[in-house]
Amino acid sequence: MAAAGTNGAVVVVVGEGDLKATFRQIYDRLKSELLQDDAFDCTDEARQWIDRMLDYNVPGGKLNRGLSVIDSYKLLKEGNQLNDEEVFLGCALGWCIEWLQAYFLVLDDIMDNSHTRRGQLCWFRVPKVGLIAVNDGILLRNHIPRILKRHFKGKPYYVDLLDLFNEVEFQTASGQMLDLITTHEGEKDLSKYTLPVYNRIVQYKTAYYSFYLPVACALLMAGENLDTFVDVKNILVEMGTYFQVQDDFLDCFGDPEVIGKIGTDIEDFKCSWLVVQALQRANENQMKTLSEIYGKSDPTCVAKVKSIYKDLDLQNVFAEYERTSYEHLISSIEAQPSKAVQGVLKSFLQKIYKREK
Amino acid sequence: MAAAGTNGAVVVVVGEGDLKATFRQIYDRLKSELLQDDAFDCTDEARQWIDRMLDYNVPGGKLNRGLSVIDSYKLLKEGNQLNDEEVFLGCALGWCIEWLQAYFLVLDDIMDNSHTRRGQLCWFRVPKVGLIAVNDGILLRNHIPRILKRHFKGKPYYVDLLDLFNEVEFQTASGQMLDLITTHEGEKDLSKYTLPVYNRIVQYKTAYYSFYLPVACALLMAGENLDTFVDVKNILVEMGTYFQVQDDFLDCFGDPEVIGKIGTDIEDFKCSWLVVQALQRANENQMKTLSEIYGKSDPTCVAKVKSIYKDLDLQNVFAEYERTSYEHLISSIEAQPSKAVQGVLKSFLQKIYKREK
Repeated sequence: MAAAGTNGAVVVVVGEGDLKATFRQIYDRLKSELLQDDAFDCTDEARQWIDRMLDYNVPGGKLNRGLSVIDSYKLLKEGNQLNDEEVFLGCALGWCIEWLQAYFLVLDDIMDNSHTRRGQLCWFRVPKVGLIAVNDGILLRNHIPRILKRHFKGKPYYVDLLDLFNEVEFQTASGQMLDLITTHEGEKDLSKYTLPVYNRIVQYKTAYYSFYLPVACALLMAGENLDTFVDVKNILVEMGTYFQVQDDFLDCFGDPEVIGKIGTDIEDFKCSWLVVQALQRANENQMKTLSEIYGKSDPTCVAKVKSIYKDLDLQNVFAEYERTSYEHLISSIEAQPSKAVQGVLKSFLQKIYKREK
Repeated sequence: MAAAGTNGAVVVVVGEGDLKATFRQIYDRLKSELLQDDAFDCTDEARQWIDRMLDYNVPGGKLNRGLSVIDSYKLLKEGNQLNDEEVFLGCALGWCIEWLQAYFLVLDDIMDNSHTRRGQLCWFRVPKVGLIAVNDGILLRNHIPRILKRHFKGKPYYVDLLDLFNEVEFQTASGQMLDLITTHEGEKDLSKYTLPVYNRIVQYKTAYYSFYLPVACALLMAGENLDTFVDVKNILVEMGTYFQVQDDFLDCFGDPEVIGKIGTDIEDFKCSWLVVQALQRANENQMKTLSEIYGKSDPTCVAKVKSIYKDLDLQNVFAEYERTSYEHLISSIEAQPSKAVQGVLKSFLQKIYKREK
């Protein structure tokens, strides 16, 4: 069916299976609104630049974070039936998270001097872009409050949304700082790679924006007060940590055909969960070898690191971690008073438990 | 006298002449609050990094933008007497503008590949900083909503403050984008440097955050609705444009001893008001010469550009521009219904009229 969304534009909303298609249509609408923003008297040249920059950086990911706002909201709502306005608003918030993600990725790629992202050149490596990408990252970030103001100003939870996005962005940038000063600064030093350091980086850099933020958006839309959901936040941060551990495991032991990329955490001297576990378990010899070769791009060194991981049985250490994390998460979730909230959290957990990509 | 500020901390507020000293003390307080922020479980190493990064980038400017919030608020308030809380809040908002400025400068210096700023190395050129400066810029930006939330949450104008800072940041980033894609992209092409292009860049990149933002902060503190001050915004944007024209003039014709730097707009192929005026007035020969040598760092070329400016009598063109701008601004200001608002605007104008630095 076709229906008028907020502000009069037509949004086409069809059955559940088409949610992803609806989500993509709403991207087009949000983009065109941004290209006509009253607060900036845009030139044609600038409009073309932004249009291309958005298409290149915002919609090309898996969209899991963005889609999970509306998924969560549906589970929170009695009867699970959403009207067109709810679908639109849930998708708009989902896109705000995708915009936030795009902003971080554009800037992270510059800081990490990366080459490719989502199967294409990093934005700053595209000809004629270069360091203009720094400002493009800033613009992506600035689009979020523009979207929020246009569609949520006047909602009782508007100020909470602004506070939420501000707090989560602050936490993510703080996590990125920890990562940068711990793992990038100065000479390579594995002694810094401990589990508390790892957990703190993951919590701030990834878990808040990837796991807590979508659910928090859905809770605000449902009229809830986030101050009463501290347990839910903690569960989602724990789930985000578990997700990142999986990511680190798959980077080394996943099937490149399935995960869609060839992992380079070892070459990049990453503070990966695997190296943290290895350092806890290595004997003197293995420790010496890791210190010498971790972070080198020579394939023989990479293979040697992987063989140490295998000797230390890290595949089983991971399987055990996965099992205990899952059990702990399930029992925390079942201690939640609201069945609807339990449903949201379990749906998240099922999506990632034992994932292979 | 010493008095308890908001949140219980002691703020020392003395006579009017000491406002700048008070302002600096409030920086120390805001910094120490940020270093203890509950939303981020900071490590000692990270705390030291942020401490040094803030001291390096935030308080080292002239502080004009920051101080003008409290100056303006005082003029808006009947009796012109402020209590300690008002002084603290006005200074805190002033510091938010200084934080915003620091954020833009740290990132602009990276994009422009600059060397020095405020008499010291650009932050990204400091050893061991490098591109971590991109994230430091982001952190500076994220500190603003932290300061606002801590000290203004619960004020009736809290949401308006968030909207204001978001809108002005968006406009500034949009102006920066215009500047980057017009004047940095591709080969050197003077035909793009027209007065409308110049005015648009200056309006968005500089005028909103430097001139409108401090006054808008003061108006919000005074309980006003910004929607009813569109004329004031336009006057301040006009004043900001006038200020930038002065800046461009002084870059070429000012006394380096007085302005504290040696201008390099000609070498840098900047879209300066002077070159825009020159292109409007040049004969065929002068135009050809400008096309060949504008943007070259060879001192002979720079001297030749300056001699064309002199041949075109740009010093008088500027004097005439300054006179008519001033008259137009004064008459717009005097058309304002509120004497207090007139006072704020005139105070701004007097600070910049015929300035030599």
